[in-house]
Amino acid sequence: MTAPPNLPLPPNLPPRGVERALARQRHRYEDEVERLIDATFRVMRERDTANPSVSEILAASGLSTTAFYRHFPTKDDLLLTLLERAHDITRRHIEERLAAESDPVQRIAEWVRAMFDLLRTDDLVVANRPFLLAHPRLLERFPAELGTWFDALVAPLATAIADARRAAPGAPAPPAATMPSATTPAATTPSAAPTRPDVPGSDAAVDARLAMQHVFGILVDHAALRRRLEAQTVDSVISYTWRAVLAAGPATPSS
Amino acid sequence: MTAPPNLPLPPNLPPRGVERALARQRHRYEDEVERLIDATFRVMRERDTANPSVSEILAASGLSTTAFYRHFPTKDDLLLTLLERAHDITRRHIEERLAAESDPVQRIAEWVRAMFDLLRTDDLVVANRPFLLAHPRLLERFPAELGTWFDALVAPLATAIADARRAAPGAPAPPAATMPSATTPAATTPSAAPTRPDVPGSDAAVDARLAMQHVFGILVDHAALRRRLEAQTVDSVISYTWRAVLAAGPATPSS
Repeated sequence: MTAPPNLPLPPNLPPRGVERALARQRHRYEDEVERLIDATFRVMRERDTANPSVSEILAASGLSTTAFYRHFPTKDDLLLTLLERAHDITRRHIEERLAAESDPVQRIAEWVRAMFDLLRTDDLVVANRPFLLAHPRLLERFPAELGTWFDALVAPLATAIADARRAAPGAPAPPAATMPSATTPAATTPSAAPTRPDVPGSDAAVDARLAMQHVFGILVDHAALRRRLEAQTVDSVISYTWRAVLAAGPATPSS
Repeated sequence: MTAPPNLPLPPNLPPRGVERALARQRHRYEDEVERLIDATFRVMRERDTANPSVSEILAASGLSTTAFYRHFPTKDDLLLTLLERAHDITRRHIEERLAAESDPVQRIAEWVRAMFDLLRTDDLVVANRPFLLAHPRLLERFPAELGTWFDALVAPLATAIADARRAAPGAPAPPAATMPSATTPAATTPSAAPTRPDVPGSDAAVDARLAMQHVFGILVDHAALRRRLEAQTVDSVISYTWRAVLAAGPATPSS
């Protein structure tokens, strides 16, 4: 907003009209973004796809092509916004469930339950299916973003594992090997870490990522089959995870 | 091949001409099937998709639409044939690697390595990527078939786990809980099994399926990112799996 040279504005004049107009514009734009996001979620659920077309989204939102591209230069920008919201909701849900639990061993179980809550009801199965089924292709398309968001989901589990190990004197020893995140294309670990882990014992963050792998794999499979998680399955997974992240294993790996 | 009523064939006359013609026909058909399968694998690799179009397959094979539909009434029939072959190759590879190893604990490690061999070379990454990335959608489409084939891949691991537990007196106690296969839509377990597992101890088949989940999840993520498995990652996963399937865990699950 620079003034034309022949009509200089007095300095420090509060541009009240401009601010009011901009505030109105801001509200209109925010409303448009929300309508586009709501419409996209709706189309995804109804058409059971994580890749709805722009025309479907426009039809469902009642907005124009111009409005769409004003906020999202590409459809990927919209998809990323949606994915970020979905991950954020999951992250906050995990944090809420874990905050209520002081025992770190039980916090590990709560983490598993919180993840499985993604398919807790039939409505949630319908809402989360598109994202779960599209996971491989989404990871291929947005590796950095998904890597960061998955790391955020895994972080509270890694903390719980580390806390549980500190609390139990007989628990596995701390870090021996490090594993690059399977969801982050980032560099291979440059450290001179040993090529094989000292068993028993492993890095809490590595183990947390592995726990995410089996929990997420079960979510994907159940979503593909449109099945909710059964209590018995959840308990089996908690038991498996506890053993994997807290117990001591065979003493000598070999190649 | 029934004879027309007015020209009855003498019984037991060997229809040599028919047999010869049929044998030629059989060879031609077998050749067509192989060409279609080879062409489909090639198109999948080149186009990086698990869902190539019939016209692409015909162009790559040099065969006619008639030839295609003679052998595969739908494209799904062709896809299933390919998937069955891919699973069969993996199953035989696992069996070969495991046959060379008598120690059941090491057989568990060999199973993990055999699965990770799916991405052992850059060529294998290219060849297996389409199947790995399409897994959720393939499972949705062919739940029974994939359930059966995954069970076949998991079976040698379940045996190794059971053998390792029997061999180690301090190892976890046998079955307490059962989990329905995540890859089989089949019935929930009708048994009066307790709703939560007695920890330590779990069913070897259940644990083997969970191990498949994290191993397969890592394969999918690496395929999506076009990365080969690093030795360090493989060792971390073996260590994690050993602990999960062989160690005793916390004694009291809670809800």
